[in-house]
Amino acid sequence: MGKKYSIQHEVAYYECDINQTMTFPAMLSVVIKASSDQSDQLERGTEAINQLGLTWVITQTEISIDQLPRVGEKITVVTEPTAFNKFFCYRSFWIYDEAGTQLVKIDMAFVLMKIKERKMSSVSPELMEPYEAPQVKKIQRWEKIEPVENGESQLYHVRFYDLDSNHHVNNAMYFNWIIDVLGYDFMVNHTPVAAKVKFDKEILYGNDITSVYQIDEDNGKTLHEIRVGDQLACEANIQWKTK
Amino acid sequence: MGKKYSIQHEVAYYECDINQTMTFPAMLSVVIKASSDQSDQLERGTEAINQLGLTWVITQTEISIDQLPRVGEKITVVTEPTAFNKFFCYRSFWIYDEAGTQLVKIDMAFVLMKIKERKMSSVSPELMEPYEAPQVKKIQRWEKIEPVENGESQLYHVRFYDLDSNHHVNNAMYFNWIIDVLGYDFMVNHTPVAAKVKFDKEILYGNDITSVYQIDEDNGKTLHEIRVGDQLACEANIQWKTK
Repeated sequence: MGKKYSIQHEVAYYECDINQTMTFPAMLSVVIKASSDQSDQLERGTEAINQLGLTWVITQTEISIDQLPRVGEKITVVTEPTAFNKFFCYRSFWIYDEAGTQLVKIDMAFVLMKIKERKMSSVSPELMEPYEAPQVKKIQRWEKIEPVENGESQLYHVRFYDLDSNHHVNNAMYFNWIIDVLGYDFMVNHTPVAAKVKFDKEILYGNDITSVYQIDEDNGKTLHEIRVGDQLACEANIQWKTK
Repeated sequence: MGKKYSIQHEVAYYECDINQTMTFPAMLSVVIKASSDQSDQLERGTEAINQLGLTWVITQTEISIDQLPRVGEKITVVTEPTAFNKFFCYRSFWIYDEAGTQLVKIDMAFVLMKIKERKMSSVSPELMEPYEAPQVKKIQRWEKIEPVENGESQLYHVRFYDLDSNHHVNNAMYFNWIIDVLGYDFMVNHTPVAAKVKFDKEILYGNDITSVYQIDEDNGKTLHEIRVGDQLACEANIQWKTK
């Protein structure tokens, strides 16, 4: 498969919520750092990609959680670009604890976007060459995301600090709006075991966000949509277990 | 003076804003981690303090910025408990770049709060002993914070992820509300050189926040207040220079 890369990370208190476990935004930020560091090493870093007028955009992710990393834990993040086709690059991430036990597995699909036009660009084999991931024909299928049918909603505003150094709203930040609507009691009594998320549309600075959600208590599931006006920007399902 | 302690930190992309420099919340979180690590080492960590029914609360901070740490920079944070009296503990932090040049200096005052009663506790010399900071009579004076006279304001809501693993709204998060009101244009055209902040009152989960601000363009200064209802929770002045 592709070239693997790993980073060490000590989970800081400010990356954890009151459950003493890592938040979704912190977890996603740290794994993306691993892939970004690998790209830097392969001379395919953010600057190099930006100079081509391009930027990477996450379109889909599936997260499977055996155990959330805890405050003070020294974790290892391994990442591997697993395959690419004309439009998508696929990458997996694993988070391990110090004993080498797998805590979290994350799969992601990325596309290259033309910065000016905000349109998808095809992925060139030259660009992908140093990652050593196989070029494939197949478009990967992802598990279906169940839509919200009868949801409640809360309004949010994109903040200046929701923008990261890549000039767009960090995908990890979407989880701020997704998780916040569930509330304190839900969050202290449940722990996530899996999540699937589809990013449909960029969110821009100044946008007003509606975070729509439905709690399916019987099936231990929450359904989510992030909307900008009447446009769907993100869909997610999270599977939970009671503590 | 007191026992010094230092940590190394590589500034990650998700700790920076679109200026490619570290955000206030990230900077404060990282320096507090240094003091928290030192306390752990001296067996005065969060758990030990909590077991006494106590928690540390920041009451005041002054930040002096020569240069903000940049994406990818490997910084060293040095911290030193400088003195304590009956109610206050004083601590300084320095952020250095790889060449040993000072980038940022931060002074802070802390009090011990009784968790249940939410009331200040006196600071015992036994508790402070391993830090080797001198016990003093003097209460440190801080620069006066200029109040907002003719401000505009924006509403915010405390989010679940604004709570940290210590169960209260992380002081670093106050800067989300303080900075966000200044807007994109201001933030890309100015860089902070100094800040002074007084934390008057705890902010709790579920609170609605009013971030009041006044931009004094002539003096390169912004004045801030964070209010919960009609109560003042935080006052701040930030000094800026134009880029």
